[in-house]
Amino acid sequence: MKKLLLLSALLISATFSQAQDSLTIRRFYDEALVNGQAYDNLRYLCKQIGQRLSGSAGAEKAVAWSKKLMDSYGFDKVYLQEVMVPHWVRGAKEEAYIIDGNKKIPVPVAALGMSVGTPASGITANVIEVKSLKELETLGESVIKGKIVFFNGAFDQRFIETGAGYGAAGVQRFAGPSAAAKYGAIGAIVRSITPALDDYPHTGATAYADGVNKIPAAAISTVAANKLSAMLKLRKLPLIKFYLKQSCQTLPDVKSYNVIGEIKGSENPNRIITVGGHLDSWDLAEGAHDDGTGVMQSVEVLRILKATGYKPKNTIRAVFFMNEENGHKGGIKYAEEAAANKEEHIAAIETDEGGFTPRGFSFEGASPAFLKAVNAKWKTLLEPYEADRLVEGGGGTDIGPLKETRPAIRLIGFRPDSQRYFDIHHTPNDVFENVNKRELHLGAAAITSLVYLIDQYGLNL
Amino acid sequence: MKKLLLLSALLISATFSQAQDSLTIRRFYDEALVNGQAYDNLRYLCKQIGQRLSGSAGAEKAVAWSKKLMDSYGFDKVYLQEVMVPHWVRGAKEEAYIIDGNKKIPVPVAALGMSVGTPASGITANVIEVKSLKELETLGESVIKGKIVFFNGAFDQRFIETGAGYGAAGVQRFAGPSAAAKYGAIGAIVRSITPALDDYPHTGATAYADGVNKIPAAAISTVAANKLSAMLKLRKLPLIKFYLKQSCQTLPDVKSYNVIGEIKGSENPNRIITVGGHLDSWDLAEGAHDDGTGVMQSVEVLRILKATGYKPKNTIRAVFFMNEENGHKGGIKYAEEAAANKEEHIAAIETDEGGFTPRGFSFEGASPAFLKAVNAKWKTLLEPYEADRLVEGGGGTDIGPLKETRPAIRLIGFRPDSQRYFDIHHTPNDVFENVNKRELHLGAAAITSLVYLIDQYGLNL
Repeated sequence: MKKLLLLSALLISATFSQAQDSLTIRRFYDEALVNGQAYDNLRYLCKQIGQRLSGSAGAEKAVAWSKKLMDSYGFDKVYLQEVMVPHWVRGAKEEAYIIDGNKKIPVPVAALGMSVGTPASGITANVIEVKSLKELETLGESVIKGKIVFFNGAFDQRFIETGAGYGAAGVQRFAGPSAAAKYGAIGAIVRSITPALDDYPHTGATAYADGVNKIPAAAISTVAANKLSAMLKLRKLPLIKFYLKQSCQTLPDVKSYNVIGEIKGSENPNRIITVGGHLDSWDLAEGAHDDGTGVMQSVEVLRILKATGYKPKNTIRAVFFMNEENGHKGGIKYAEEAAANKEEHIAAIETDEGGFTPRGFSFEGASPAFLKAVNAKWKTLLEPYEADRLVEGGGGTDIGPLKETRPAIRLIGFRPDSQRYFDIHHTPNDVFENVNKRELHLGAAAITSLVYLIDQYGLNL
Repeated sequence: MKKLLLLSALLISATFSQAQDSLTIRRFYDEALVNGQAYDNLRYLCKQIGQRLSGSAGAEKAVAWSKKLMDSYGFDKVYLQEVMVPHWVRGAKEEAYIIDGNKKIPVPVAALGMSVGTPASGITANVIEVKSLKELETLGESVIKGKIVFFNGAFDQRFIETGAGYGAAGVQRFAGPSAAAKYGAIGAIVRSITPALDDYPHTGATAYADGVNKIPAAAISTVAANKLSAMLKLRKLPLIKFYLKQSCQTLPDVKSYNVIGEIKGSENPNRIITVGGHLDSWDLAEGAHDDGTGVMQSVEVLRILKATGYKPKNTIRAVFFMNEENGHKGGIKYAEEAAANKEEHIAAIETDEGGFTPRGFSFEGASPAFLKAVNAKWKTLLEPYEADRLVEGGGGTDIGPLKETRPAIRLIGFRPDSQRYFDIHHTPNDVFENVNKRELHLGAAAITSLVYLIDQYGLNL
C-alpha cells in the first residue's frame, strides 16, 4: 500500500510537471510569435551590415554590433572570445567561358572559398568531365594532366532531406580540386551543389591536401554545367576548351572573435547549455539563412527566457561562432577555451540549417535507448508545435570540436524543414527577403523549449 | 497450436505487406522527385494562362488546357462536368484614401469578391473601427448608420497552424460587411487576413445575407490598416473620413466545367477515390499556391500511379473543381452528380492549402479510435517522408458537399506546412516564383502514397 501510494504520488507529480512544462513552453511560443525580435535583428544584420566573411570589414562590424545587441538585452555576461581566422578575399569578379572553336560562351562561376587565383591572364585548357572522385581516379594522370577537371556529379533528388544530398554531392567541392591537382590538372570547376536548376554559382569552401599543387577552383551554375556537359558530348575533345580567370587570394590571418552572451545558472553556474550559430557568412550575399537566422535565433533564446521570467538552473549561453565557412576556427577555439576553463558542458545545440519551419532536433550519436527515452519524455510536449521529430543525426560544424574537449557533452542539431535551403545556399539569393518571420520565430521558440527541458531534466533520461 | 500458426502466418503476411508498401511508396517518391511534372505544368498554368476567376476568359482557357493535359497522359477517362458559376468582375482598379482634413492619403485596397461597386463618384464617410462582429453589435445602429465600418481584428499570431488564424480572423471578411449593412453602414473595409505586415490588400469572397442592403466592401493592406487605426486614435471622429471607389459587379451566371480524369479500378470500378483541388483562382495574380499547386498535384497523382505501373483496385479520380473561390458551385455539382450516378465514394482528398512541404493529412470528423488505427497502420510508412502527421481536421471546401450526398465517404485534407501560405494568399504575390519544386513534388508523392494505402486497405481500419 505504501508502495502504491508512492507510485501514485510519483505519477501525479509527473503529470503535474508535464502540465507545467506544457504551459511554460506555450509561454515561450507566445513570446516568440507575438513579441519576437529575431526577424528585426536579422534585418539589421543583413541590410545594415551585409556580407561578413571572416577577416572582412563586414565581419568586424558584425562582431561589434552583436556584442552591442547582447549588451542591450542585459544578459548576465557578454564577452568576446578572441580567435585568429583565415582571411580569404575573392578579388575582382571571376570571368569564365566555354570556348567552342571561335565562339566564347560566358558562364556564371564563382571561385570556391580558399581557392588560389589564376594567373592574371587566366587559364585555358581542355575540359575533362567526371561525375565522381572515383571516376577521376579511373582516368588517372595520363588523361587529366594539363586539363581543367569539370566535376559534374548531380545532386541526388531522391533524398527526402536535402542535407543528405548536399553531403553526398559535396565531396566533389571539398575534395575534388585537390584530388584533380594530384593527377596534374591545372584547374577545377565544380557543379553547384544544389537541387535547383538555376543560373547562380553556389560558392563554398574547398580544401587542398598537404603537398598538393594548389590549382584554381570555381563553382559553376547548374544550368551552365548542363550546357557544358551537353557540348562536351556533342563535340568531344579537343574542340571544347574552358577559360577561367579569378583573382582570389589568401592574406595573412586576422584577429577576430566569437561573440558570447549568457544567463547564469541559479543552481549550477558552471554547467552550461550552449546554443549557437555562426556569425560569418559567404561574401556573395547577406548570409540570411546561412547563418544570420541561426545567430539571431540563438540570442532570441536567451531573450525569450528572460522575457518570460524563467530562471535557468544551469548557465545558458548564446554563441555567435566566427569562421564556420572557411576554417571552423571559432568552433575550435570555443572548445579549447571550454576545456581550459574546465567548464562542464551538458549540451550544445547548433542552428545552421536555415531559418525554416522547425521539424525537430537531431541528437549526435544517440543510441536507440536514448532516442526512445527522449521521445517518450518530450515528444508530446513538442508535438503541438510540430517540432517533435527527435532523431539521431549530426549536431553541427561549430559545436563538433566540443565533443573532443568535453566528451560528456550531448551535441544537438536544430532541424528545420530542409527543402529550400540549398536553393539559395552560398548564392546572391541568400537575402533577408527569403526569410519568413513566423518560420524564424517558431524555430527560436522550439530551441528555447528544448533548452528549457534540458535545463530542467538534464539529458540522462 | 493451429491458432498460433494462423497468428504467425498473419503476422508474417502483415510484415511482408508492410515491406511491400514501403517499397511501393519509395517508388512513388522517386518518380515524383526525379521525373515529376507538376512543377512544369504549374509553370504553364501560371505563366501561359494566369488568373482564372470563375467566368473569366482565363478560366475557360484553363479548362480547355487541363482537359488536353489529362488527355495527353492517356488516363482511362477524361471528361468535363458542366456547372453554372457566378461571374463577378473587379472592373477598374479601386481607389481609396484616408481623408485627414485637407490631406488625402492613398491606401491599397481591393474589392472583396462578390462585393457590389460604389457609385461612380465613390463613397465618403466617417469611419468606425471595430475589432470583431461582437463589437459591431455592441455599437449598434445609432453609431454605425451612415458610416464606413473598418473591421480591424488582427490575425492572431499565436496559432501554430496559420489556417486556424485565418479561420478566426476570416469571419470579419465573410460576414462583416453584411452585418455592418444591417446597422445601416454604407461601406465596409476589412483588414487583410494575413499574419504578414505588408502593403498588399488580400482579397477573398464576402457574402451578403438575404434581404440585407448590399454595401461595397474592400480589403485593406495590414500596413494601411495600422496607419488608419493609429490616425483614428489620434484624431477621433469626425476629422478622419474614408473614400472608396470600386466598380466591381456581378454579371449573369456563366457555363463552366469541372475537369475530371480517372484510372479505372481493376476490381471495383464503381468505388472511387477522389483527389482534387480547384482550377479557378482570384484575379489579382496567377493562383499559384491557391490552387494551381493543388490541381497539378492531383493530376500528378494519377500520372505517378501510371508511370510506376500501379494498377489500382478502385477507380482513382483527379478532379479540378471550378469556382471554389466565390461560390463553391463546382464542388456542389460534383457531389450532386456522384449521387445521381450512384457512385460509391470511399474517400476524397483535397489539396488546397498551398504546395508547401507536406506535414501529413487531416481526417474530417475522425474518432480517436480511427486516428489510433490509421496511425498504427500507416504512420511508420509515411514517417521516412516526414508526411506522417495524421490528425483530425477539415477535408476542404470542394469535397465538403460529398459528405451530404455520399455519407459513407471519408473526407481528407492534405496538410502542407502552413507558415507562408497566408503571406501571399489572394494577393499579387501568389505567383509561380513562390513555389518550390521539391516541396510541390513531395506533396504529390505524399498524396499518391495515401491514395495507394486507401486503395489497398480501405478506410475501415
